[in-house]
Amino acid sequence: MINVGVLGATGAVGQRFVQLLAEHPWFNLTTLTASERSAGKLYRDVVKWRLDVPFPEQAGDIRVSPTGVSSLKDVDLVFSALPAEIAGGIETACAEAGLGVCSNASSHRMDPDVPLVVTELNPDHLGLIDVQRDRGRDGFIVTNPNCSTIVMTLALAPIRDFRFTDIRVATMQAVSGAGFEGVPAMGIFDNIVPYIGQEEEKMETETLKIMGTLDGSTVRPPSFRVSASCHRVPVLDGHTMAIWADIADPVDKVREAFLNYTPSVPALPTLPEKSVQFFSEPDRPQPRLDRMRGRGMTVSVGRLRKGIRFIAMGHNTIRGAAGASVLNAELISTKNYL
Amino acid sequence: MINVGVLGATGAVGQRFVQLLAEHPWFNLTTLTASERSAGKLYRDVVKWRLDVPFPEQAGDIRVSPTGVSSLKDVDLVFSALPAEIAGGIETACAEAGLGVCSNASSHRMDPDVPLVVTELNPDHLGLIDVQRDRGRDGFIVTNPNCSTIVMTLALAPIRDFRFTDIRVATMQAVSGAGFEGVPAMGIFDNIVPYIGQEEEKMETETLKIMGTLDGSTVRPPSFRVSASCHRVPVLDGHTMAIWADIADPVDKVREAFLNYTPSVPALPTLPEKSVQFFSEPDRPQPRLDRMRGRGMTVSVGRLRKGIRFIAMGHNTIRGAAGASVLNAELISTKNYL
Amino acid sequence: MINVGVLGATGAVGQRFVQLLAEHPWFNLTTLTASERSAGKLYRDVVKWRLDVPFPEQAGDIRVSPTGVSSLKDVDLVFSALPAEIAGGIETACAEAGLGVCSNASSHRMDPDVPLVVTELNPDHLGLIDVQRDRGRDGFIVTNPNCSTIVMTLALAPIRDFRFTDIRVATMQAVSGAGFEGVPAMGIFDNIVPYIGQEEEKMETETLKIMGTLDGSTVRPPSFRVSASCHRVPVLDGHTMAIWADIADPVDKVREAFLNYTPSVPALPTLPEKSVQFFSEPDRPQPRLDRMRGRGMTVSVGRLRKGIRFIAMGHNTIRGAAGASVLNAELISTKNYL
Amino acid sequence: MINVGVLGATGAVGQRFVQLLAEHPWFNLTTLTASERSAGKLYRDVVKWRLDVPFPEQAGDIRVSPTGVSSLKDVDLVFSALPAEIAGGIETACAEAGLGVCSNASSHRMDPDVPLVVTELNPDHLGLIDVQRDRGRDGFIVTNPNCSTIVMTLALAPIRDFRFTDIRVATMQAVSGAGFEGVPAMGIFDNIVPYIGQEEEKMETETLKIMGTLDGSTVRPPSFRVSASCHRVPVLDGHTMAIWADIADPVDKVREAFLNYTPSVPALPTLPEKSVQFFSEPDRPQPRLDRMRGRGMTVSVGRLRKGIRFIAMGHNTIRGAAGASVLNAELISTKNYL
Repeated sequence: MINVGVLGATGAVGQRFVQLLAEHPWFNLTTLTASERSAGKLYRDVVKWRLDVPFPEQAGDIRVSPTGVSSLKDVDLVFSALPAEIAGGIETACAEAGLGVCSNASSHRMDPDVPLVVTELNPDHLGLIDVQRDRGRDGFIVTNPNCSTIVMTLALAPIRDFRFTDIRVATMQAVSGAGFEGVPAMGIFDNIVPYIGQEEEKMETETLKIMGTLDGSTVRPPSFRVSASCHRVPVLDGHTMAIWADIADPVDKVREAFLNYTPSVPALPTLPEKSVQFFSEPDRPQPRLDRMRGRGMTVSVGRLRKGIRFIAMGHNTIRGAAGASVLNAELISTKNYL
Repeated sequence: MINVGVLGATGAVGQRFVQLLAEHPWFNLTTLTASERSAGKLYRDVVKWRLDVPFPEQAGDIRVSPTGVSSLKDVDLVFSALPAEIAGGIETACAEAGLGVCSNASSHRMDPDVPLVVTELNPDHLGLIDVQRDRGRDGFIVTNPNCSTIVMTLALAPIRDFRFTDIRVATMQAVSGAGFEGVPAMGIFDNIVPYIGQEEEKMETETLKIMGTLDGSTVRPPSFRVSASCHRVPVLDGHTMAIWADIADPVDKVREAFLNYTPSVPALPTLPEKSVQFFSEPDRPQPRLDRMRGRGMTVSVGRLRKGIRFIAMGHNTIRGAAGASVLNAELISTKNYL
Repeated sequence: MINVGVLGATGAVGQRFVQLLAEHPWFNLTTLTASERSAGKLYRDVVKWRLDVPFPEQAGDIRVSPTGVSSLKDVDLVFSALPAEIAGGIETACAEAGLGVCSNASSHRMDPDVPLVVTELNPDHLGLIDVQRDRGRDGFIVTNPNCSTIVMTLALAPIRDFRFTDIRVATMQAVSGAGFEGVPAMGIFDNIVPYIGQEEEKMETETLKIMGTLDGSTVRPPSFRVSASCHRVPVLDGHTMAIWADIADPVDKVREAFLNYTPSVPALPTLPEKSVQFFSEPDRPQPRLDRMRGRGMTVSVGRLRKGIRFIAMGHNTIRGAAGASVLNAELISTKNYL
Repeated sequence: MINVGVLGATGAVGQRFVQLLAEHPWFNLTTLTASERSAGKLYRDVVKWRLDVPFPEQAGDIRVSPTGVSSLKDVDLVFSALPAEIAGGIETACAEAGLGVCSNASSHRMDPDVPLVVTELNPDHLGLIDVQRDRGRDGFIVTNPNCSTIVMTLALAPIRDFRFTDIRVATMQAVSGAGFEGVPAMGIFDNIVPYIGQEEEKMETETLKIMGTLDGSTVRPPSFRVSASCHRVPVLDGHTMAIWADIADPVDKVREAFLNYTPSVPALPTLPEKSVQFFSEPDRPQPRLDRMRGRGMTVSVGRLRKGIRFIAMGHNTIRGAAGASVLNAELISTKNYL
């Protein structure tokens, strides 16, 4: 068992981390950090638990530490659910102090020597950890992409060998993506907000890093481009997206690729039976019905039409955030980085 | 004053027609038809009024007639809010009997000699009425497009002189588009349904007819293509759509075109002050805040980005259905067709 | 293992029955009935599965039978999810043919010799089965109450020994209570409908039967009265209700009764750890957060204030329908009625 | 024309005040105040307009002042949309400085010499202004009740002559009641929150003051009691409530009272044609369909049943806040207080 902690354990993504780690077979959750105000109190007394799954009572007994490297003496690996504004420095300090950091924050995603990893898609990018070590760092930072980028790239994984030069994606994103307090009801009830700050930029740049080729110490981007239009919709969980990939091959061949997809990763506790589930029904996937497939870790794909057009949907706070990070950590644990 | 009637006056679109015609300055609403079951009763006693504007009491006093040409002796012009399954034959019979028919049904939209008109966009297509007359028809049929097609084409009107070869559009469509009973709450609450029957086909074919060139007795389609992905979202009224138009010109020139747009149509009672309103705010248009601009007749456009990408939004049962039909009828009234 | 069937297996409640019975430790689900149109086909091919839990694949292999007693030769016990309009006759025929019938339909609920049972509350009412048998019936019918009645009466169970003369209840009921197609989105989005047909009457009469005293062959009603006001709200699952019970005792004593409640029933597979969960938090229970407690079988209670006023909430299609019926069947199985 | 101002003009209630006053026939809106941060800028540049009615352009040209008595030199009457935390002192200072203050804040509502007025219900309570003046105050403070209290008391106005000893009310309150940012979407989507801080206390105490009798310089409360249970529901605007009033008279007599109600107030610009509208339809009133009756100033009542039970519904930010205050100010203007 590897002792692990969560930085920023009381927020929306932090709670998901706690839920996924509370009974994890490989990881022993010992440390939870939050703001100074909460430090010293029991987790159960400071967290306002808002997931619709029962509160993990054993995590409730953990005494919360202040967010910082000095709170992490007993752990080997730490998950970061910190907001981007403060994540950068703290994560660097942790890595310098010898810790493995699996971060959901955007701060280090585009750093040249920080792997930006979707477990099924580019596990080899973990090789960048060696680059970090070569320049004297004891620990390391590994990041996972933005929630909508994860859903899209995983949906593209089965068809990445078809050549495409242009990806266009229109997202319909759930309110949980902005955190518990992020979207006021008055702003989104009976409404759509056709703007999410920095989201389009993240989809357009992160995708190229993830789907690039690790070449020595750098990632060479692929030759295609991504053009995103991102929209908030009145849905609680699950990001849905319409994707155009200009593949010349016939629809049948593309369908086959979706149906036959098996990622080249070892068995991992959080890896779902199917990373990508293909639907033949004309009206699927739907976020409310399909977001919990594979315990929230499966990306659902459907409505494949010539174009090539299709729909992808995945749970944004599980597969698109905490679950993606935990899956990366599991993969790292099978290698010799800790 | 021209005496007018509404075919199918009790449904969602029918009620919108009644609302728009009840106090119309040029049209005198005398006839409302519905199913046999309702015939003979007062409109107020058979309609289950579900608009959030007050019931037009004067229309309530009209005695409902059975749907058919024999009920329309006193009118010169009839609006059709009939479902496509029955609209075709009845509308033809009306036109043969000498009536002008302005139809929101899809039955005749793609008939070669039936104009498919968005008033601001292709008023000249009304010339096809002469083609109908040349083959011996006393009356005529004029149609308006599908609701999402209207919003998109009107949003494209200001920039149609830029050359584009490919239009891609991802829609987020309101539940009212399916009629009052069309979408069960259990199907769309906290959900998205990425499929609307025949909607993508309509957007892809109707757009080419509307934006085509009338050449003698036929409409020559433009050279661009349309690829649509249509989705139902939990919004009551207002279709929002993300549009990509592959225009090479810089964003500033395109913005200018949106800002300077004035359609070449005479002043008409239902014509809004602005047919297309351009927003500079980063998070607009939004359906709940903007759908009632221009009393529901304005299409709002915003988030113009390089690509060219932008957002369009319009009220689907007013601008996208009944209002579009009434506006067409007003234009027809200024010519010599009645 | 007891062979069981479900009458009306494709609707909202029918699907819940199938979900709960597919892997039941005591019941072997062998028979599913539906309309003539579906008969002869595999369940997976006729059901439009709309629960947000995975489809039970083993049930999918069952070939659907037409709804009627002749389809039930191999079962000893049948669950009825039929609509009230047709349930009455079919259920009687089944009981006459020797089958045990556990029905969620309202048809026989108020029949004098049919037990109307909430397992934890009035298990002794099953004694009415003997009354049915005494008049020559081979099988029997046992019913569970209306969904909102179940939630309220179970919430009253811990405090039934306090004397109250008047119960007032205002419900806020989920749309799933009307079936998948029962409530159009246009009717309930951003809205409340302050009327549910026959719901108030059911709460007012069924409560008195359940909470009455079995006295020989009849149930003697209690002396209190119930006054209900029932309202549909835009919530998917979970009926919430504000209850006033005119108890003179202090709030502390009532709280204690809620906290100490343990029903007098044997351990049953579907019985939750807590039938009634009491919340001290000021803003609980909430349907989205609490409806799945006890796998949907726990009724949550909170906001206890002088008056005595409190809030009760329970999952309407699990605890309030299929789950209640299955729990009753489990209790019956522990006795000698099958 | 009377020059008026609005304290706290950028918030939810402040925007409603601006909307109602921008084209008022008696009041000339000259002054808008907000926080220091906004002071000195044009209203159009600091307000994030979120109403679904067009922004009043003439108000947009007003230069915002800091909130305080020194900003109000040019006005005779000021409307307060301040939060309760800061309203108390500022309103007192304004009144001492000779201004008339019509406040929607709760700070002074229960002060013995401050009238708490629903225009149609207790206009005579304005007599308390004289009590304020007798103790040397140049100006005055008049308050309107909490939003849900206004809807309930106005619904009780037509039947106040029937004797009741107990009122029980269960509310289903819209999210706009908590301000634009008050309720996160994650907290209320597909959910009910059975708690609104201080709301029940306000309904229980304010009602007794409004419906009390002015006796010299004090208000004598009526003999009945109010017991409230308040709940937040996923509705944008419009508070709905189920009310029990223990009236012994038959339902028909009560219905007649509702139908015949005419308040004893002079014609005022904001007074709707019907202050209380009675519905005979079994499923009305409904917030989405009925909240804008009387331009948001009508309270709708229906589902009258023995008990006496009935449903009341009114627009919470118009009739329940800004509109109530403006109506009070209009009544005051017809008297000699300014």
